Amino acid sequence: MATWLPTLITNTPEEGYDLAVKLSRIAIKLTQPDAEARERMRPDYAEDADALIAVSQVVATHFATISAANNYWRDAS
Amino acid sequence: MATWLPTLITNTPEEGYDLAVKLSRIAIKLTQPDAEARERMRPDYAEDADALIAVSQVVATHFATISAANNYWRDAS
Amino acid sequence: MATWLPTLITNTPEEGYDLAVKLSRIAIKLTQPDAEARERMRPDYAEDADALIAVSQVVATHFATISAANNYWRDAS
Amino acid sequence: MATWLPTLITNTPEEGYDLAVKLSRIAIKLTQPDAEARERMRPDYAEDADALIAVSQVVATHFATISAANNYWRDAS
Amino acid sequence: MATWLPTLITNTPEEGYDLAVKLSRIAIKLTQPDAEARERMRPDYAEDADALIAVSQVVATHFATISAANNYWRDAS
Amino acid sequence: MATWLPTLITNTPEEGYDLAVKLSRIAIKLTQPDAEARERMRPDYAEDADALIAVSQVVATHFATISAANNYWRDAS
Repeated sequence: MATWLPTLITNTPEEGYDLAVKLSRIAIKLTQPDAEARERMRPDYAEDADALIAVSQVVATHFATISAANNYWRDAS
Repeated sequence: MATWLPTLITNTPEEGYDLAVKLSRIAIKLTQPDAEARERMRPDYAEDADALIAVSQVVATHFATISAANNYWRDAS
Repeated sequence: MATWLPTLITNTPEEGYDLAVKLSRIAIKLTQPDAEARERMRPDYAEDADALIAVSQVVATHFATISAANNYWRDAS
Repeated sequence: MATWLPTLITNTPEEGYDLAVKLSRIAIKLTQPDAEARERMRPDYAEDADALIAVSQVVATHFATISAANNYWRDAS
Repeated sequence: MATWLPTLITNTPEEGYDLAVKLSRIAIKLTQPDAEARERMRPDYAEDADALIAVSQVVATHFATISAANNYWRDAS
Repeated sequence: MATWLPTLITNTPEEGYDLAVKLSRIAIKLTQPDAEARERMRPDYAEDADALIAVSQVVATHFATISAANNYWRDAS
């Protein structure tokens, strides 16, 4: 059975950042499962500076978690 | 006696994420115990981009806690 | 002399969550000590989705602290 | 020379919470040093549910720091 | 193949802060990839105190992550 | 060559708090480099309770980082 989140471990910081973006979007899908409703709202945030900053805050919170999980990719640096 | 939160430990990251969603909803139930009142408010946030992003922020905060509790599921990766 | 917060240690995660809710309310009492004023404001947040989500965020922050204090109740799992 | 913040160490969790409240207020004093201006704004937040919740969030963030500094007062529990 | 984020490790705290600013901006680019749309919104936040403070919050969150990754540059102090 | 942030290490908690205030202001300068524009916005936040609380939240986040960097000044207590 497939899972959308098999692990928090990534090869690089950039992949970790991409995963943080994904994690921030999943909560929105779980709260509003209707894809059309989400699509209708897209201009509300994609054209709104405050909403974009708020999205950026959620990503930052998830990136902190993923960075800790990966021990900050210190071995890769 | 049953408890809604027996443990923070989950088998997988995805189950941990689901638990984070659950934790974010419980605080709302404890503050507004009336189920009908909560139902009336549903369109206020399910159709509102700002509210959905704010929910996503709460989930991210709980997911950080649960991820630490599970040692980031490192053994499972 | 009694204290409202003798310890952050709880027996279970659920008790820890209840303590997080309590901690989130105390700051409001300390900033607005007048019980009647707080009562007047109750509809402002109990019927408002944005306010309920914001309360949920404060609870999440306190729950992170309490979970760390209890070593995530790992021994109980 | 006196200091308003000689240490983050407190005897009890409750004293730690009081210190968190103090820390949350100092930033406001440093940004708006005029005591009369602050007094004029008091009704803006003491009678406003959203502002009280936001204050509570700041206190929660400082309480996390102070709790970690005190090793969660585990020896006192 | 180039990456925009090869490592979280920096030589100094100041470089770490600059990286935090960069990380806060990337999430916005990923959510709104249209450079012209982002440019149109610039006055919305560059001239708005609330938006600037919100940006500052995102930077603070990323700076916490980067500081931990660099062990707070303790060896450099 | 001078740097505005040579280290996160401070002698006392109070100096750490002052550094947190400084860090919260730098992000605003980097996003809005025009000093006159920032000066025009000053009344927008210095006279606005919500903005002052938001500034206080940013300071709290930076203070958490600086406190960890300094091992909570435990040796000084």
